[in-house]
Amino acid sequence: MNTSFFGELLQAISERGRSLLDRARARERRDTLTETTENLADLCEELLSNRGEASGVALAREILARYDDLTIGPRIAFFEALATRFGADHTRINAAIEAWRNKPSDVAAAELHAATEPRRLELLRRLNLAPQATRTLVEMRGQLLDTLTRRDDLAAVDADFAYLFSTWFNRGFLVLRRIDWSTPAVILEKIIRYEAVHQIRDWVDLRARIDSPDRRCYAFFHPALVDEPLIFVEVALTREIPGAIAPILELKREPLDPERATTAVFYSISNCQRGLAGVTFGSFLIKQVVAEICREMPRLSTFVTLSPAPNFAGWLARQRTQPSPALTEADRAALATLDQQDWWSDEAALDEMREPMLRAAATYFMTARNSSGSPLDAVARFHLGNGARLERLNWPADLSERGRRQSCGLMVNYLYDLGDIEKNHEAYAESRAIIATSAIRKLARPSRALTTVEAAS
Amino acid sequence: MNTSFFGELLQAISERGRSLLDRARARERRDTLTETTENLADLCEELLSNRGEASGVALAREILARYDDLTIGPRIAFFEALATRFGADHTRINAAIEAWRNKPSDVAAAELHAATEPRRLELLRRLNLAPQATRTLVEMRGQLLDTLTRRDDLAAVDADFAYLFSTWFNRGFLVLRRIDWSTPAVILEKIIRYEAVHQIRDWVDLRARIDSPDRRCYAFFHPALVDEPLIFVEVALTREIPGAIAPILELKREPLDPERATTAVFYSISNCQRGLAGVTFGSFLIKQVVAEICREMPRLSTFVTLSPAPNFAGWLARQRTQPSPALTEADRAALATLDQQDWWSDEAALDEMREPMLRAAATYFMTARNSSGSPLDAVARFHLGNGARLERLNWPADLSERGRRQSCGLMVNYLYDLGDIEKNHEAYAESRAIIATSAIRKLARPSRALTTVEAAS
Amino acid sequence: MNTSFFGELLQAISERGRSLLDRARARERRDTLTETTENLADLCEELLSNRGEASGVALAREILARYDDLTIGPRIAFFEALATRFGADHTRINAAIEAWRNKPSDVAAAELHAATEPRRLELLRRLNLAPQATRTLVEMRGQLLDTLTRRDDLAAVDADFAYLFSTWFNRGFLVLRRIDWSTPAVILEKIIRYEAVHQIRDWVDLRARIDSPDRRCYAFFHPALVDEPLIFVEVALTREIPGAIAPILELKREPLDPERATTAVFYSISNCQRGLAGVTFGSFLIKQVVAEICREMPRLSTFVTLSPAPNFAGWLARQRTQPSPALTEADRAALATLDQQDWWSDEAALDEMREPMLRAAATYFMTARNSSGSPLDAVARFHLGNGARLERLNWPADLSERGRRQSCGLMVNYLYDLGDIEKNHEAYAESRAIIATSAIRKLARPSRALTTVEAAS
Amino acid sequence: MNTSFFGELLQAISERGRSLLDRARARERRDTLTETTENLADLCEELLSNRGEASGVALAREILARYDDLTIGPRIAFFEALATRFGADHTRINAAIEAWRNKPSDVAAAELHAATEPRRLELLRRLNLAPQATRTLVEMRGQLLDTLTRRDDLAAVDADFAYLFSTWFNRGFLVLRRIDWSTPAVILEKIIRYEAVHQIRDWVDLRARIDSPDRRCYAFFHPALVDEPLIFVEVALTREIPGAIAPILELKREPLDPERATTAVFYSISNCQRGLAGVTFGSFLIKQVVAEICREMPRLSTFVTLSPAPNFAGWLARQRTQPSPALTEADRAALATLDQQDWWSDEAALDEMREPMLRAAATYFMTARNSSGSPLDAVARFHLGNGARLERLNWPADLSERGRRQSCGLMVNYLYDLGDIEKNHEAYAESRAIIATSAIRKLARPSRALTTVEAAS
Repeated sequence: MNTSFFGELLQAISERGRSLLDRARARERRDTLTETTENLADLCEELLSNRGEASGVALAREILARYDDLTIGPRIAFFEALATRFGADHTRINAAIEAWRNKPSDVAAAELHAATEPRRLELLRRLNLAPQATRTLVEMRGQLLDTLTRRDDLAAVDADFAYLFSTWFNRGFLVLRRIDWSTPAVILEKIIRYEAVHQIRDWVDLRARIDSPDRRCYAFFHPALVDEPLIFVEVALTREIPGAIAPILELKREPLDPERATTAVFYSISNCQRGLAGVTFGSFLIKQVVAEICREMPRLSTFVTLSPAPNFAGWLARQRTQPSPALTEADRAALATLDQQDWWSDEAALDEMREPMLRAAATYFMTARNSSGSPLDAVARFHLGNGARLERLNWPADLSERGRRQSCGLMVNYLYDLGDIEKNHEAYAESRAIIATSAIRKLARPSRALTTVEAAS
Repeated sequence: MNTSFFGELLQAISERGRSLLDRARARERRDTLTETTENLADLCEELLSNRGEASGVALAREILARYDDLTIGPRIAFFEALATRFGADHTRINAAIEAWRNKPSDVAAAELHAATEPRRLELLRRLNLAPQATRTLVEMRGQLLDTLTRRDDLAAVDADFAYLFSTWFNRGFLVLRRIDWSTPAVILEKIIRYEAVHQIRDWVDLRARIDSPDRRCYAFFHPALVDEPLIFVEVALTREIPGAIAPILELKREPLDPERATTAVFYSISNCQRGLAGVTFGSFLIKQVVAEICREMPRLSTFVTLSPAPNFAGWLARQRTQPSPALTEADRAALATLDQQDWWSDEAALDEMREPMLRAAATYFMTARNSSGSPLDAVARFHLGNGARLERLNWPADLSERGRRQSCGLMVNYLYDLGDIEKNHEAYAESRAIIATSAIRKLARPSRALTTVEAAS
Repeated sequence: MNTSFFGELLQAISERGRSLLDRARARERRDTLTETTENLADLCEELLSNRGEASGVALAREILARYDDLTIGPRIAFFEALATRFGADHTRINAAIEAWRNKPSDVAAAELHAATEPRRLELLRRLNLAPQATRTLVEMRGQLLDTLTRRDDLAAVDADFAYLFSTWFNRGFLVLRRIDWSTPAVILEKIIRYEAVHQIRDWVDLRARIDSPDRRCYAFFHPALVDEPLIFVEVALTREIPGAIAPILELKREPLDPERATTAVFYSISNCQRGLAGVTFGSFLIKQVVAEICREMPRLSTFVTLSPAPNFAGWLARQRTQPSPALTEADRAALATLDQQDWWSDEAALDEMREPMLRAAATYFMTARNSSGSPLDAVARFHLGNGARLERLNWPADLSERGRRQSCGLMVNYLYDLGDIEKNHEAYAESRAIIATSAIRKLARPSRALTTVEAAS
Repeated sequence: MNTSFFGELLQAISERGRSLLDRARARERRDTLTETTENLADLCEELLSNRGEASGVALAREILARYDDLTIGPRIAFFEALATRFGADHTRINAAIEAWRNKPSDVAAAELHAATEPRRLELLRRLNLAPQATRTLVEMRGQLLDTLTRRDDLAAVDADFAYLFSTWFNRGFLVLRRIDWSTPAVILEKIIRYEAVHQIRDWVDLRARIDSPDRRCYAFFHPALVDEPLIFVEVALTREIPGAIAPILELKREPLDPERATTAVFYSISNCQRGLAGVTFGSFLIKQVVAEICREMPRLSTFVTLSPAPNFAGWLARQRTQPSPALTEADRAALATLDQQDWWSDEAALDEMREPMLRAAATYFMTARNSSGSPLDAVARFHLGNGARLERLNWPADLSERGRRQSCGLMVNYLYDLGDIEKNHEAYAESRAIIATSAIRKLARPSRALTTVEAAS
């Protein structure tokens, strides 16, 4: 009689998740039938056939359940079958080429397009008929990506997954949700697991990051993966741009009244679904979170990151061990301290290294490029590509094991100035221009003196 | 602090709808800028360019808002631009063909596939970044379909919409919802508007169909169109297979205790979104509703339709006015009564016509084919294609104006026998076999005596 | 696995409503047992006994279901039983009085309080164990109130209901909800039915009042009556204080952009549940809606009603037909037009009556009192008691049949000035002071010349 | 436009929780005003006055916020004020007694009832106007209960709280919710904190109890305390009646397929809100959970507890240290092992003690009574009072520190046989009959030989 319509709609979405146990049971039944299941690819052919139209849901469910039961070896065999048996039809391609050559028209181009579509694309679309299929397909691609490092021949299969997912996970279908202490545990557990930048040790650590008045966390969700965050960002509200990570992660700090905050610091962004690699969410997430925070706290004026420099340690090591104009001799000498054991716990040594380190870092950001001419630093590529500018270098800012190993303790702030984002992005997009404050530019050694191209990151 | 996570997730989805007023306001502002807006296509180029990456959401919103403001003429001009300016790149196609001819490989096929993808596909995907974009794009295609009847040259554009929508509206993303008296008015209003088979006159009529213990209504929804049903079906619970529509639509009937029902009658299926024409939902909807009802009322044993025969009246008129073996002379004479005014209100005449009419109907279903060899009757094609069988012919069953005009008063029952659906579907799919009860087969005149192919429906 | 916690919580609340059909079925079964059901009061005794503790839910459900089946006569007999069999225990009272006289202590007062509590109070609390019981109990009191007019002896029973409901429906448990076009039809249907001031003719009329950008509607709900509004208010957003109702109810008006509104007009407040008579919600509703609107539209500065004067027509008729200082002779003569047929359709006559009518109205509001010294006008008592002030008199403002019959076409604006509400309320509470603008005060004939006390309204 | 009505209704309820931060801020502001806040009781008088009607919400909020800021001493002073200043009016009581003596009527009884109602009851009802007030009032009574042990004079105040809460938290307003891994963390955290029987060590332990296919957890909630469970029960699904707690709490067990379960074991019931002491939920909870589980798993046939015997250790110690017919000399000797250190880790000793221990336990349950004639065992009183029967004694069943200290390692099963509950309850209610299996009855020493009355538990 009196129920919540849209609530039930979502209920219906989420109840799909309940089928896991049923699946477990179905599996047992299946186990008694294993001799007949050898050929998953044949079932896929069936799904693409007439019969697939009538009983598509059941067939798709069966295929995904069987795939789920496979060990790695047979899964790779399945990927091979996708590559070899479910590509495009060469005869049809050749005929379509002939037609195009006779008369290059829209119709001929469309037929050529259709003829070159690998059959596995339609197969993946039909597999999605099964309950929970999207989840399984995303996991399937995760597995495929793991395989890919050793198996170039599966690249085409991966490209088809990527293409399909970028259509399905179109930004227009994503939903931004705040993550806080009223979020279901099933989601929070994943936030703990997926945090990739600054590890969340346990539920106490988690709570400090999401349930404090001066902390925020937001994630993107897709309606078909309702209890799986796709990407999330952690935000600290502060009164100034922070220069180190430890005070932000400190469990015992005194929370700031958010009314007094002036600055939102994005100190961690983590992708959650390996199977969605290459489908970009990060840029949209940051911009929408900025909009969200602006609406809640109109007084906030500064949006900034506190980011690692993941390729800095490697670059610096190379400059120190080979002749390089990137370092003056004095700085090279000062940075030799890095070779001492436990250099990070010697306050005096840190003091002495600080200036040389900042000069090296400035030079790194302003001049080090990868083989395609983009900044060598992967995080810089992301934020500069989004239209942020390089605002400040901080050292020492992260002396954790990971911080030392990747970034020699360096962290940087990228500033999102809403008025400049578009202009910055265009400058970057056209010429890979590094937008940075003049302070940083001045610190850097002149780039014309440098070999600016590094090996691909 | 303590809010409902998934509830808010959906809230977030649905709040997108609130932007309508904002859009109206934005429009006013835009009006003062009209001289600079002449070229929507240029904005689309921008959205496909680098700048589109940085400010895609804003650009997409702007383009869709401007499109919304256009009158029909300029909209058609926009479709033309999509056809002519946003197709595939011929040079790239030719180069890809060259590469394929040199070495026909997966890589070459993939490049050929990419080269032949019209640029408007990526454009449509980027337009979907805007809030509420999916809704606008579906409406846009509705408009395009209206245009298409006079403009063959836009068929390729339409095919791209259709392809994209069949990916976005994949069955795996749809949600089945029951429609009842606790459904929001904004949805119910659309059920009234979209009912295509047996008109819903007003809210009283609606309530009789959704808020009676022996009635059900279900619809498919997509999370991005949260207050727009895609397709819905109306169901009556009865104790026997019904032979006429009027008792089902009767407002003053005594409702049946659903516990005593044995039969679920699907008496109306309506597609709601013209812009989603060609994306098939009906087959999935019927099967899922059968599953839903089975779960709620395990005692129900019979699932059947009460359907019109929309091509019967035309076919019968042709058999009556030209020499045809489909009618015996006696039946032809009896059916001449159809030429009398108000034949439908003469009980005695109806009695006399009944047997001849049923024979004609049986012959129609068993033998009349369209040019592609499928049943001439469009509804028969749908249900037989889903694996139902033709169960019973009913006459007179619908003497409404529409019922007489389309079906000469005939209605038929298609039976969904869960055990036979797959087998029936395969028989139909392979040979267009008409699965019907022996009673109907015997009634029909032998098909070998007949010209079985009719002009396309 | 992944469901909405709070959503389900409410789901659980609302599913209680589904039991109606079950109840209908149970009723059939019961019908075969009618001979054993004669004594509902005995079942009530059982519910109050030990057995009631073990199987209270089932017993309560049974009692309420049987009550539901009764016709009016037996229901009144049941109320009589509540009055006579379920009062307080006189022996216990006398003992408690003895104890108090011996030693007037807190403990003795508490025992006296307990001893004087009628047993029916505990009975009503236990009846509430049944699913949907609150709804049935509210309806039961509605019936009791109808009976009360002829049956003084049931007043004590009614007082117990009123006491219990004022505890259960404490303002702290009510929830304010906006009513709009996305509200479930089951609620909207009740808005149509319960509107008591300006009838809602149909769904089109309803939609104009709730789904226009310059209209709002809010209602209070109680979690135990989830699809039953308790009271609702309709609001129009305007640019000035309105002087007539017709333009507000007009279906074809051009909606005002709410951004441009300066004034919120409360033009209709309706109580929905007869059974909750005497439990006051109106004052809280108005204040919370003011707060709600302020938050949504901070620019709004004026909160005002457009209200009928339901006791004015009767008062005026008395002044006109008997010697009274309330009217000058000239005004009395002018107002004689009211005796002419169709006076309301004669523009010239209306013009001439306007000033005399406004003078009479001012005198009415400033001087006419009921026997307890409060304003004679029931609506004035409500709004002045809430701390509003009488702002403006409008004539002619409502020439509908009802408007003429009750108010002679008069409507008035009460202004809620947030800064003055408390002060106004205190002045009214202490001395029944009529807070009105000086314009109205000047219009009124001096009250010392008048008999200010009227018969009770 | 398109939002979820009931979802928002609950949203509105839950958003009340957000005000905590605001309250913290208000507190700061208040701190500067402390000199004017000394007299909370005066504000309470104001809330009960006329002014309280106009600005009740603001006043109530202010009073509760000030109370919240108080330390324990001033809070007790506030309770004293409630006791002394907000009792009933003696003059009015005496007048009402006079009226009753003159004419003992319903009206006179009602006036006597009203006269003896302490003013603090109305005060508490008005305090509930403030946002989140119910929560604060429940906490306030928790504090009061702590005080009560030393302050008999506050008992009347506590009785008023208890009376009011039993009306507000009427079973008819409670909502049963399943607790699982999709429950918000804010609730789960409280489940961990409130578990009173078998401590939940951490989130891993919690997950094992709520997110395993053979475990269930249910709680009652009240809409005004939406993120506070009132009481919860933990259930294990098993294939037999369990005889020990450790296997149930084991983290590493293999979960049972719930389809194969035959038995639902209620192994822990915890009340959550100290402030609701005396408002009984447990009986309703068990019965509704039984109904819920029956609906989900109709095959389940056995509903049983695994319960401690919290008064057994004390009783047994007394029987062992003083002459008592409850133990034979042989058993007394055997049980002397309990005096040895670490007796619980000596398998052989346990074996030898087993039979004597079970005989003692049977005697304990069948014969030991408190001063009011009820079973000495508090848990037995609860379950037997609900209509369960004592089914089996298990030893050793809980050798944890708490298990040994309270129950000497004993645990018992109470069986809820749906067909017998009502009969059992009546037998218990009338004569405190101990319903137990014959096996237990036979094990017990004959009660006529025993002093059956123990000191109050």
